[in-house]
Amino acid sequence: MSETHRIPPRSGVAFRLNAGQELTVIDSMGGQVADLLAVARDDVRELLSSGRTLDYAERIYLTTGDRLYSNRSNVMLEIIEDDVGRHDFLLTPCSEATFRLCYDNEPPHQGCHGNLAGALAEYGVTDDAIPVAFNCFMNVPVDGETGKFKVLPPLSKAGDRIRFRATMDLVIGLTACSAPASNGGSFKPIDYRID
Amino acid sequence: MSETHRIPPRSGVAFRLNAGQELTVIDSMGGQVADLLAVARDDVRELLSSGRTLDYAERIYLTTGDRLYSNRSNVMLEIIEDDVGRHDFLLTPCSEATFRLCYDNEPPHQGCHGNLAGALAEYGVTDDAIPVAFNCFMNVPVDGETGKFKVLPPLSKAGDRIRFRATMDLVIGLTACSAPASNGGSFKPIDYRID
Repeated sequence: MSETHRIPPRSGVAFRLNAGQELTVIDSMGGQVADLLAVARDDVRELLSSGRTLDYAERIYLTTGDRLYSNRSNVMLEIIEDDVGRHDFLLTPCSEATFRLCYDNEPPHQGCHGNLAGALAEYGVTDDAIPVAFNCFMNVPVDGETGKFKVLPPLSKAGDRIRFRATMDLVIGLTACSAPASNGGSFKPIDYRID
Repeated sequence: MSETHRIPPRSGVAFRLNAGQELTVIDSMGGQVADLLAVARDDVRELLSSGRTLDYAERIYLTTGDRLYSNRSNVMLEIIEDDVGRHDFLLTPCSEATFRLCYDNEPPHQGCHGNLAGALAEYGVTDDAIPVAFNCFMNVPVDGETGKFKVLPPLSKAGDRIRFRATMDLVIGLTACSAPASNGGSFKPIDYRID
């Protein structure tokens, strides 16, 4: 069995995931969001696209069987297991600006955007290129009538997981989310495994 | 009174819009979508971000009074008038791949993605950098329970418009949308005016 890695609270990592490998993202303590970004390893200008993915899925909530597409309409990842069934693919990772604009009483934090930018820099991904991430376990119910949404605590319980299979050679950026509203106000680690 | 420009069916243009200027997008014949993209003129790596904008608006349907943000969390445009109240900011402009994947019986077309890429190339915007556009008049109701959405004909009637004020010096990409489902199956021009 492969090693389980731990991402400390409010931080992020980047690593290689080869075509055919599986990535399991585990919310070991429950109620914690993990922002996931995928970049094509042979050309980092090709990266995860919420707009293409949602268009092809015809749904804003994705789960087992759904495919995550790149901006070039290639499949990057398939979701092959999902204990939770509620993730967000509408919102950009929080940044220092998000904290300034949305959290009056919180000290600014570089957020998942800053953590992803830092971790992905060595692979040649620039800060500006970071798009909407696939926000594992993030619970953003939308009111279809008004279009209003809320950011509620995740539905994930301790040990819940989501598993992806890579369909091309990728670099993955993955965080333990830093935004108070997304995690019910407390920051926990995120675990992951590559098989 | 300023000149009204016409974008022929299934095509796109790019033009400069200075801070303080107003852009009116007019659906002169009714039931036609126009994809709008904004890029900061002094650094084209700064461009429209659906993920930031929706996060700050806390709504997926935007209208008068809402602000469209860049990937750097700067306000690019404000919506100052809106006859329709239903636009899409979830889906990426259609591309040739979209036609291959979604329209079995349609000859492939470069779509709004290709039209935007072509029009914006002279300003240094690359094909891969084109994000989710603000799709004026595009009618994508979401079922909040299931997350499923439909692409329905626009609610816009002949002459309906949406007006934006630029809050920085911009390059705008604007199309008359090419996708059958988005326009009730017929392709019409889009008009615009700069004041």
